[in-house]
Amino acid sequence: MADKGESFKFAPRRSVEEVEEGKVLAPKFDKDGVIPCVTTDAASGEVLMLGYMNAEALALTIKTGEAHYWSRSRQSLWRKGATSGLVQTVVELRIDDDQDSVWLRVNVAGSGASCHVGFRSCFYRAVPMKTGISPDQLVLEFKEQEKAFDPKAVYGDAPNPTVL
Amino acid sequence: MADKGESFKFAPRRSVEEVEEGKVLAPKFDKDGVIPCVTTDAASGEVLMLGYMNAEALALTIKTGEAHYWSRSRQSLWRKGATSGLVQTVVELRIDDDQDSVWLRVNVAGSGASCHVGFRSCFYRAVPMKTGISPDQLVLEFKEQEKAFDPKAVYGDAPNPTVL
Repeated sequence: MADKGESFKFAPRRSVEEVEEGKVLAPKFDKDGVIPCVTTDAASGEVLMLGYMNAEALALTIKTGEAHYWSRSRQSLWRKGATSGLVQTVVELRIDDDQDSVWLRVNVAGSGASCHVGFRSCFYRAVPMKTGISPDQLVLEFKEQEKAFDPKAVYGDAPNPTVL
Repeated sequence: MADKGESFKFAPRRSVEEVEEGKVLAPKFDKDGVIPCVTTDAASGEVLMLGYMNAEALALTIKTGEAHYWSRSRQSLWRKGATSGLVQTVVELRIDDDQDSVWLRVNVAGSGASCHVGFRSCFYRAVPMKTGISPDQLVLEFKEQEKAFDPKAVYGDAPNPTVL
């Protein structure tokens, strides 16, 4: 189970006005105890990944300046780069209007990649638009031609986090 | 309830390898029938919002080239800009490695704003980093000084989508 935040106390959500227009950080964790986090490359602006944080991961990210997530597949705290060395150093952390999403702008160590498949961004494929083709017939287009690293060399036999 | 996609059939998820390395669009909708979507401004790269799509919203976005979402607070399909005129025209739509997140790059009509509070981006506040202050004492910093539009004038008495 995700840490529900007992040990990393954020401020309570008192009113819609305070949450939207105020200066108090009062994040909303969902029923699984996590908040989604968009992570972009601070230099290129590219979206690298969409991860999830529990209260501990968010607090540690703010405290250390390095991105921490909650791995839903492993059900454990995940310091990004712990295995791969591809640590994400936070340049800026933003919270959205209703405080139920986080945006991290980061610099990535090493090869600069953030995707466990080996690509720079997890979003390495584009969906063709307005083709009139049925959704189950669409053919994805690769936007990165080469992997930035070899996932087998980096992760070895660790279980693949992708769940069908 | 979110449309479970019966009427907008996407391809089945057959194997981890096909989902990660293949060219078939086989998105994973969560137990509520939605997939998270990061939306960025195609010109500035700024993250504008994090929304959710059900199968119908994703299919309509691909078909029409205009961003559609699933409103969790209203529990209804939401063509972005239907009320405000701030329509998002999709420049590119990407899917991530395990196909459980979408990234839209868009051009926004009118004032270019995407946030119901009136700001350009929903992420108009930053969290100070590495202060050593307890999470419940952090003071947010506003990154947009002025609203791009007056939400009262645009939305009138429509219910605020923010949920405590």
